[in-house]
Amino acid sequence: MDKVTMTETIIATKLERNLTWETMGNDLGMSPVWLTSACLGMNSAPKEKATAIAEYLGLGEDVASALEAYPTKIWDQTVPTDPLIYRLYEIVGVYGPTLKEVIQEKFGDGIMSAIDFSMDIEKIEDPKGDRVLLTMNGKFLPYKSW
Amino acid sequence: MDKVTMTETIIATKLERNLTWETMGNDLGMSPVWLTSACLGMNSAPKEKATAIAEYLGLGEDVASALEAYPTKIWDQTVPTDPLIYRLYEIVGVYGPTLKEVIQEKFGDGIMSAIDFSMDIEKIEDPKGDRVLLTMNGKFLPYKSW
Amino acid sequence: MDKVTMTETIIATKLERNLTWETMGNDLGMSPVWLTSACLGMNSAPKEKATAIAEYLGLGEDVASALEAYPTKIWDQTVPTDPLIYRLYEIVGVYGPTLKEVIQEKFGDGIMSAIDFSMDIEKIEDPKGDRVLLTMNGKFLPYKSW
Amino acid sequence: MDKVTMTETIIATKLERNLTWETMGNDLGMSPVWLTSACLGMNSAPKEKATAIAEYLGLGEDVASALEAYPTKIWDQTVPTDPLIYRLYEIVGVYGPTLKEVIQEKFGDGIMSAIDFSMDIEKIEDPKGDRVLLTMNGKFLPYKSW
Amino acid sequence: MDKVTMTETIIATKLERNLTWETMGNDLGMSPVWLTSACLGMNSAPKEKATAIAEYLGLGEDVASALEAYPTKIWDQTVPTDPLIYRLYEIVGVYGPTLKEVIQEKFGDGIMSAIDFSMDIEKIEDPKGDRVLLTMNGKFLPYKSW
Amino acid sequence: MDKVTMTETIIATKLERNLTWETMGNDLGMSPVWLTSACLGMNSAPKEKATAIAEYLGLGEDVASALEAYPTKIWDQTVPTDPLIYRLYEIVGVYGPTLKEVIQEKFGDGIMSAIDFSMDIEKIEDPKGDRVLLTMNGKFLPYKSW
Amino acid sequence: MDKVTMTETIIATKLERNLTWETMGNDLGMSPVWLTSACLGMNSAPKEKATAIAEYLGLGEDVASALEAYPTKIWDQTVPTDPLIYRLYEIVGVYGPTLKEVIQEKFGDGIMSAIDFSMDIEKIEDPKGDRVLLTMNGKFLPYKSW
Amino acid sequence: MDKVTMTETIIATKLERNLTWETMGNDLGMSPVWLTSACLGMNSAPKEKATAIAEYLGLGEDVASALEAYPTKIWDQTVPTDPLIYRLYEIVGVYGPTLKEVIQEKFGDGIMSAIDFSMDIEKIEDPKGDRVLLTMNGKFLPYKSW
Amino acid sequence: MDKVTMTETIIATKLERNLTWETMGNDLGMSPVWLTSACLGMNSAPKEKATAIAEYLGLGEDVASALEAYPTKIWDQTVPTDPLIYRLYEIVGVYGPTLKEVIQEKFGDGIMSAIDFSMDIEKIEDPKGDRVLLTMNGKFLPYKSW
Amino acid sequence: MDKVTMTETIIATKLERNLTWETMGNDLGMSPVWLTSACLGMNSAPKEKATAIAEYLGLGEDVASALEAYPTKIWDQTVPTDPLIYRLYEIVGVYGPTLKEVIQEKFGDGIMSAIDFSMDIEKIEDPKGDRVLLTMNGKFLPYKSW
Repeated sequence: MDKVTMTETIIATKLERNLTWETMGNDLGMSPVWLTSACLGMNSAPKEKATAIAEYLGLGEDVASALEAYPTKIWDQTVPTDPLIYRLYEIVGVYGPTLKEVIQEKFGDGIMSAIDFSMDIEKIEDPKGDRVLLTMNGKFLPYKSW
Repeated sequence: MDKVTMTETIIATKLERNLTWETMGNDLGMSPVWLTSACLGMNSAPKEKATAIAEYLGLGEDVASALEAYPTKIWDQTVPTDPLIYRLYEIVGVYGPTLKEVIQEKFGDGIMSAIDFSMDIEKIEDPKGDRVLLTMNGKFLPYKSW
Repeated sequence: MDKVTMTETIIATKLERNLTWETMGNDLGMSPVWLTSACLGMNSAPKEKATAIAEYLGLGEDVASALEAYPTKIWDQTVPTDPLIYRLYEIVGVYGPTLKEVIQEKFGDGIMSAIDFSMDIEKIEDPKGDRVLLTMNGKFLPYKSW
Repeated sequence: MDKVTMTETIIATKLERNLTWETMGNDLGMSPVWLTSACLGMNSAPKEKATAIAEYLGLGEDVASALEAYPTKIWDQTVPTDPLIYRLYEIVGVYGPTLKEVIQEKFGDGIMSAIDFSMDIEKIEDPKGDRVLLTMNGKFLPYKSW
Repeated sequence: MDKVTMTETIIATKLERNLTWETMGNDLGMSPVWLTSACLGMNSAPKEKATAIAEYLGLGEDVASALEAYPTKIWDQTVPTDPLIYRLYEIVGVYGPTLKEVIQEKFGDGIMSAIDFSMDIEKIEDPKGDRVLLTMNGKFLPYKSW
Repeated sequence: MDKVTMTETIIATKLERNLTWETMGNDLGMSPVWLTSACLGMNSAPKEKATAIAEYLGLGEDVASALEAYPTKIWDQTVPTDPLIYRLYEIVGVYGPTLKEVIQEKFGDGIMSAIDFSMDIEKIEDPKGDRVLLTMNGKFLPYKSW
Repeated sequence: MDKVTMTETIIATKLERNLTWETMGNDLGMSPVWLTSACLGMNSAPKEKATAIAEYLGLGEDVASALEAYPTKIWDQTVPTDPLIYRLYEIVGVYGPTLKEVIQEKFGDGIMSAIDFSMDIEKIEDPKGDRVLLTMNGKFLPYKSW
Repeated sequence: MDKVTMTETIIATKLERNLTWETMGNDLGMSPVWLTSACLGMNSAPKEKATAIAEYLGLGEDVASALEAYPTKIWDQTVPTDPLIYRLYEIVGVYGPTLKEVIQEKFGDGIMSAIDFSMDIEKIEDPKGDRVLLTMNGKFLPYKSW
Repeated sequence: MDKVTMTETIIATKLERNLTWETMGNDLGMSPVWLTSACLGMNSAPKEKATAIAEYLGLGEDVASALEAYPTKIWDQTVPTDPLIYRLYEIVGVYGPTLKEVIQEKFGDGIMSAIDFSMDIEKIEDPKGDRVLLTMNGKFLPYKSW
Repeated sequence: MDKVTMTETIIATKLERNLTWETMGNDLGMSPVWLTSACLGMNSAPKEKATAIAEYLGLGEDVASALEAYPTKIWDQTVPTDPLIYRLYEIVGVYGPTLKEVIQEKFGDGIMSAIDFSMDIEKIEDPKGDRVLLTMNGKFLPYKSW
């Protein structure tokens, strides 16, 4: 089973059972963000997690194997068009050099890893309009000379 | 004074005085991230903040005016090449659809604003390698029908 | 049912019943522009509206569900080629900086929201050639410092 | 005098005299939007208007001539990055096919002219946040067979 | 019937009956160029013309309806590769600014409409090599101030 | 003298003497379109014509030499943005395959040359709006097998 | 039969019969390069040649007709990736301005036709490594003034 | 002296002395094509050749050094616009897969080198129009397995 | 059998038999990197190797033939998005001019061949994190003058 | 002193003193590849190394400071055109998916770091043509779930 079919199968079951990513993550003891990325096929799941997800959803071993497979991460739109995703792209464009200044001032020359990395989303209720709190946590990788 | 000259002037003074964005932000009571973006010319500063920054650096009114001017936000590279900034772009590519799923599950159909928005960077010391904690906080804007 | 099938089903029924978007909008008490964008799959309909549209057209719950689903807004042509749509793109190119000047003079630094937003089209009859009156109404979102 | 110098001269004078586009337009009996586009060099001004603008600002005949010259309308960014202008681009992407449906339903096969065209901006005060009202008015041009 | 199937059906019938666009145009009293563009799906035909074309070819009402439908004009290649079409693109690149100079000198600031527009092709026999005579006829649209 | 300086010199003289391309062409016995393209630096002028143009304008031999030089024809915008030039590009996009059909039906497999080529512009007065008549005349070049 | 099916049919037969383009060209009295381009669908074959090719391969009239049809020459990759083809692209990039200098010095202002054109490939055996000899032969087309 | 200044200096001297690339090549015993590419800065000249060229033109050692320097080969236009160079690009697009078929049939899997490579241009006089004979000679490089 | 089906067949068999590229390479006496590239369809295998691979996997002659066929090397993403492949692209961007400096200092003007080329990957165990050792070995090809 | 001036200064001194990157690296006890990248401005040098390099070349503290500054890594050409650099790009295109297969088979899901990374170039003399040996050594970074 390839990742595309896997995602379709999982989404269909999720809808049928009226589940949310949050419930699934909480029940399985996994971050809802990471769980979603694995189910959308953009991350591989370690064997036990893959099995746990498939079992939780009552799906077979082929789904577990597909979750475990190492994905080739491809996106088609150099500049994303969906407004929710574009706003994130805009933040990178507007604040990219700012983040470079501030991170490198704090840590020295290097980068924030996108591999040794986790992310979380929280909802902050606010009478003037709820707020999205998006947290990224990545290992700092210093450049090395040799 | 245009924004490019303003940035050069501020950066030169900052180097001369051996300041950091963090010190400047703390002394002025402003977020170091926001302060940096204003000094790099990607955000306008309200009048009092513009004056405060210029005075703090011992710079003239022309710098204050330039900080107050509304910028046209332009970036040249559709796909950024600097590794620190590219990793952020990669996160948008890899996790964009995931964030859309999770945010819209929590909030309904809508987006996280990039305008009513703030950001923060913290350093988490870790013996296995320090970590960058990047927090984004944006108002949720629901789509409306009419 | 995905959005593409939904649109095909709705368009086929609309042709069969010889309906216009305007009639549909007026009968349903919805703006014809918004209704069209929902039926073309570029906006989600709140539950009651989705049900009302499907019932009005004599279509099933699967169409209502598809109307209610949150769309991923994608367009393929960075520069649109259809002349009607290109002219709108040209207006953004020719008048974009002008609109920025005038809006920001009136409102301060910020943007017109494309999310908290509505649009309307009217026909103005004119012996020298009828005119299209296109009205956009978006909430002003001020930039904030932090 | 080329259009770039003309724009710089006009903007400098406007700042010096603390004028707004709105005041200038009202005093001169011209639409502030059109006046701005002429001063930014994206439209030519008829002779009398060119002279009136230059005289109003106390500028010479070379500015009047530059305002009168026919511009070559060029923009560099296929996809604009400034958030205010991008939102307009996004509206064309999201609502382009919708506008085509609704306009062509009302008028037949054809387009809204971007040449025989005018535009207006109004501020609607609103306790929940002021709103931008953007009105476009273009002649409908029907396709012809031959 | 969509435009693609319509074009295939018409081309197949045309080949079967050994017709040329020229014969068809002359018999039907329509310009061969316009007729071709309608049959290739890049222009809509008014009802009577659509019916006449379909009847002439012995094709059904579905073909007539497809001819009448308003097309979305899309081309995939920003720079066309077929040599015949590329040469036209090259002419626009080489002579575009020249045509702007000469047209605007003759007519004032404005454009040649591509909507209120017709085109014709003639063959001029010449012992040194026949020549293609391509004539474009478009309404001049002056810019307006407001 | 390079072509850019040549063009600036010629345009300055033309403005000073209040000449039009049409007058110049008629006085010199050259097509105004061709003359313009040579003066804009997109075509080389044969020696006698180059000399005649320079002398007519009271300009020196360096201008004549620059007119005679073989240009490298470069344009920067793959898709032109100026509305007058874009409409020509749009015509190539909308009617390119139509012109291919009709030309190749009349002439066989081959192309219209853009090298052995001339072009003319005429103004047709019309109470409903003047019309631009643009004529292209290119040698047909048949493909050959070998 | 369209060109794609035609090419597949010819290639399948060629493999089955263990033919080479060279043998086919020699047997049929046609240049192997031209023959290949016709069979790959990038050139049309005159009627007699089309028939001869089809008969030689024991294929039907539909193949002959497809060979005779005028192709629309399309390539998808602006910059080719296959190393053999990329090297040719690189030669155009590295030597293009050189070839322009040398050809125009020898012939005057004009171009080498890619339509009235033929090409040949020979193998030159060499103990240090065989060499490819690629010969292009195109009619010189001088620019004309008018 | 950088390559750009070197080219300008050489071209100026060449014009002054009324030389052709052909004369220069013949006098110096070098291929005119290669000599041109070295003088345009797209190839480095071995020391003795660099010195010979500079001396022949009466230019100094700085020109010889610049000729000897290893160039970074850069071209700006992915698709060249100058018609002479575009036709070569078109030949690569139209005949690329054909050349791949024929070369690999003759030589096996591999490519024609663009490094161990030479090129020549000849003029073939022809009453029906002179012809350009362009010859490329590149070492065949077979792929290797390992 | 085309290369795509060949790759799918080989990968399926490899999974079924629980093989690794490394085992396969070692058993067959071929480099695992080269073997993988042949099985992914990006290199052709000489006849004996093609047969050996097919037999080893218990697959038929059609797979052997497909392995032997000369591939057209195509990749779709100008800038790769998968992080593992992007990092290699980034290395070319960051270190490309450095490698040019160092290689040409050591070898003279020329390039490293990507055709007469081999590559190897080793795992270096390291308590601070294992390391990838990637070795490229390509023939130096000197530019030649002529 | 910015990085561009720094590079020019270093290169000028290196030429004057007739140094090679290799000598410099060996004398300074630094890898010639890393040293070159620092001097070309694509890597920052730790303080002591920056000072050592500047002193070795007899250059001032401003050069040392510029070497120490954290660079913004930018390259202009998405697809590099210089043949030496293009071949590296081609290797990424042809072998990218192969390297992904082999690395991830050996190490699990993850990437080779381009930050915790070093590179080396050696010359292997060979009577059939010297060979370039390019070695890359990067830390393996495993993806993590959370």
